[in-house]
Amino acid sequence: MPMDIEQFRKAGYQAIDRICDYYYSLQERSVISEVEPGYLRENIPLCAPEEGEDFQVIANDYQKFILPGLTHWQHPSFFAYFPTACTFEGILGDLYASSTCNPGFNWSSSPACTELEAIVMDWAANLLGLSEAFTNASGIGGGVLQTTASDSALVAVVAARSLYQRQHPETKMEDLIIYTTTQTHSLGAKAGLVLGLQVRSIEVKTEDELSLRGDALRHALDEDAKLGRKPFILIATVGTTSTGAVDNIPEIRDVVNDYPSLWVHIDAAWAGLALSCPENRSKLYLEEINSFAHSFCTNFHKWGLVNFDCSTLWVRDRKHLTDALDITPIFLRTKHGDAGTVIDYRNWHLGLGRRFRSLKLWFVLRGFGAEGFRKYIRRCITLNQLFVKLIQDSEDLTLAIPPSLALTVFKLSPKLKSANQPALSTESLNELNRFFFGRLSARHDIMLTQTSLNGTFCIRFAVGAARTTEQHIRDAHSIIEKEAKVALEAWDQTVNGISIVG
Amino acid sequence: MPMDIEQFRKAGYQAIDRICDYYYSLQERSVISEVEPGYLRENIPLCAPEEGEDFQVIANDYQKFILPGLTHWQHPSFFAYFPTACTFEGILGDLYASSTCNPGFNWSSSPACTELEAIVMDWAANLLGLSEAFTNASGIGGGVLQTTASDSALVAVVAARSLYQRQHPETKMEDLIIYTTTQTHSLGAKAGLVLGLQVRSIEVKTEDELSLRGDALRHALDEDAKLGRKPFILIATVGTTSTGAVDNIPEIRDVVNDYPSLWVHIDAAWAGLALSCPENRSKLYLEEINSFAHSFCTNFHKWGLVNFDCSTLWVRDRKHLTDALDITPIFLRTKHGDAGTVIDYRNWHLGLGRRFRSLKLWFVLRGFGAEGFRKYIRRCITLNQLFVKLIQDSEDLTLAIPPSLALTVFKLSPKLKSANQPALSTESLNELNRFFFGRLSARHDIMLTQTSLNGTFCIRFAVGAARTTEQHIRDAHSIIEKEAKVALEAWDQTVNGISIVG
Repeated sequence: MPMDIEQFRKAGYQAIDRICDYYYSLQERSVISEVEPGYLRENIPLCAPEEGEDFQVIANDYQKFILPGLTHWQHPSFFAYFPTACTFEGILGDLYASSTCNPGFNWSSSPACTELEAIVMDWAANLLGLSEAFTNASGIGGGVLQTTASDSALVAVVAARSLYQRQHPETKMEDLIIYTTTQTHSLGAKAGLVLGLQVRSIEVKTEDELSLRGDALRHALDEDAKLGRKPFILIATVGTTSTGAVDNIPEIRDVVNDYPSLWVHIDAAWAGLALSCPENRSKLYLEEINSFAHSFCTNFHKWGLVNFDCSTLWVRDRKHLTDALDITPIFLRTKHGDAGTVIDYRNWHLGLGRRFRSLKLWFVLRGFGAEGFRKYIRRCITLNQLFVKLIQDSEDLTLAIPPSLALTVFKLSPKLKSANQPALSTESLNELNRFFFGRLSARHDIMLTQTSLNGTFCIRFAVGAARTTEQHIRDAHSIIEKEAKVALEAWDQTVNGISIVG
Repeated sequence: MPMDIEQFRKAGYQAIDRICDYYYSLQERSVISEVEPGYLRENIPLCAPEEGEDFQVIANDYQKFILPGLTHWQHPSFFAYFPTACTFEGILGDLYASSTCNPGFNWSSSPACTELEAIVMDWAANLLGLSEAFTNASGIGGGVLQTTASDSALVAVVAARSLYQRQHPETKMEDLIIYTTTQTHSLGAKAGLVLGLQVRSIEVKTEDELSLRGDALRHALDEDAKLGRKPFILIATVGTTSTGAVDNIPEIRDVVNDYPSLWVHIDAAWAGLALSCPENRSKLYLEEINSFAHSFCTNFHKWGLVNFDCSTLWVRDRKHLTDALDITPIFLRTKHGDAGTVIDYRNWHLGLGRRFRSLKLWFVLRGFGAEGFRKYIRRCITLNQLFVKLIQDSEDLTLAIPPSLALTVFKLSPKLKSANQPALSTESLNELNRFFFGRLSARHDIMLTQTSLNGTFCIRFAVGAARTTEQHIRDAHSIIEKEAKVALEAWDQTVNGISIVG
């Protein structure tokens, strides 16, 4: 039989206790799960049981079969991808929200869900220094929670396409183009796949630190204009996934002055949170973003202390969202919606139903306070500066590109042993670094991810887990140095004819 | 300062206790929130606090400001829209999942997330009697969790469009058409808006109980073929939102035999869960769905006891999803993904990151067991049969259309007082029913929603909250009868020249 209220109380206390145990034990765990593909099917029956099971059995199976199959994104030695936030305040926000489940698709379906979201999105805008124009209080712009930066970008692209088509009704879908750069997150290419639209990926150069420059954008726009193609949106990035590169927003603004129908969406999924600290605002071009960007996205579930999912999207004109997405069948009509006095968030995103996600954002912003939030961001950047220094002091490791905020991209680049030793080719270096990264990936006590910078294989190191300390950075560096040595020794053997790959 | 582990334990216990209190008090609460638009902005400061706050203050503000602004979807007298599930097993599943937050976009990012989803989607397929062809174990078809039925449908439309375009590379986007019916959920129209594609909404008739018939589909296909238009997907519904109508799947199958490039997506968002009971399978056309449908969606977060969100989508050929949606930049490449030995679920949906939602589905299916699940579904249907009987016995209320599973659509249809009293026009009846529904909506102790059946204003009554008993049905019926009497009396006054609307 399903559990009653008192059984829930018991199981709930136990869950809380076990989560506490988990966090006490986190450091002792491997970062990376050690299971092999298919491990779970061997341990779980093929069908649901006929009779309901006691929750204690289920809870124990979670400990036994699920926990060992998790990669621990909150582990202090997790430096892969970008961090994914998980705070106690966020867990509690999700817990309260899931206890009164409702799909929040319009104001009436649960007024608190809509109203709190409208308010805390303004809190978040304020924290990041976004212009008043983007706030819900403005009545014109506004902020809304989406699932991921991919959804946020997709919503922006749909709104931009819809606007462009209304302004240029004769446009053929085949001529529409989404602009990205070669360093834009795959969300750009995916938006193209989903919508069936062309994507032009403008090349960015290593000498520009992989930032999109105005000239390159203008060249693409001029070229496409001549060919009758219709670029309608640029997804510009503030803090790319690969290297944390920042597109040159001031130059982009100048170009867009001449091409006013180009919607500019700022994808600051990771780096956007650093705008909370005034010292980062100038290098992330906040002023320029505020002056002209059509939409802006950052993910509080990345570097923003709020549990996944919590992607925040702001637009300068909410009407562009509702003009593109509003459908109100009779069974969704309400007195307040008809009167236009409330926000019906279903018309601001792709789906209909939505969870009550603003609750955890509210809990986190209040629990940490703006100052606590900034302190966390600054600590991550400081820890990364330590890592950068350790790499700079290293004999064989080098920075692949200047570090960005809390992200460092490095590679193994062995010093030449003598003046007449020939420099390694890019291919050889890539082979060496792939081998090196293979060794790092085989370990379970640290986790990093790879990237490629215009053909050069590199390794990313992203700081962000809430429990990472200086010691974890030093330990990580020691491990990396150790594996670098082993990789280089094996490499030396290759020179003597023994392949490292086999 | 943010909370430490022991502070979390304390706040967690308190949250569990308060959730228990909430469920003990649920019946005493109003179903519908009594707040007015803007209530929350008056009670919450404009910005996040500078200093972090004690969690006790935050938790108390939740009780004080948020709870009163919620509409209680789990209230036993909630009969609006469709039910939204919220079970203790589901809450605990979400709690464990949010405690180890990770974005689960590929196998390596947390093997347990991918593996459990693949397994419990097979459990769910088995529970509903779906063909083995749709299971992950088949290696060809497969199941994946999406956010809402809108997302599931959008994914199906994108996959179908991509397949059609690969098979017919000369097709112009402007010629592509999505087929729906006039009773399809707004997700069909929204998919059209999002993708910028035409939607043809085929008319269904009241005499067919609003079911799409083969003839109507064939007529549309023949007509569009002549005009060079390219219908590439039909969103067929098993259990529409308005009335629970079921499209005639056997007749659709016959037509599709002649139009093999038409993808058929079955949207059974609500009614699909009733397939768990063998006695419902024939009238919901399970055998025919199993024989030919390309994709099938139902929402366990509606009538399936799993907390929002948990939309289950199955496809007969997973390759159609990955062909349409796969993008793998280097920073997402992994050993296992490259080898193709594991599912990378990011290529099965629109976004990149995804929560660990299979955990709650696993908890619920184990906690209730298949038999407990079916018992719940049957109880809802039985309760609705009681409501149907009460309406049938009523003097002034009538069924607008035969009831469907746990959904009844009715209207006020006053008996004529004498043989020579003229029958009310549809317009007058609609005006009367709008007034009647306005009175019901003004109450806070019951919640229902409206619909329109080919021009006739009606009221929906959907049973599904886990705590609804026979007494709640009888009480609801009493309230409805009482308001009907008041509405009719006011109506009689209108006949004497006094408008009811003023």
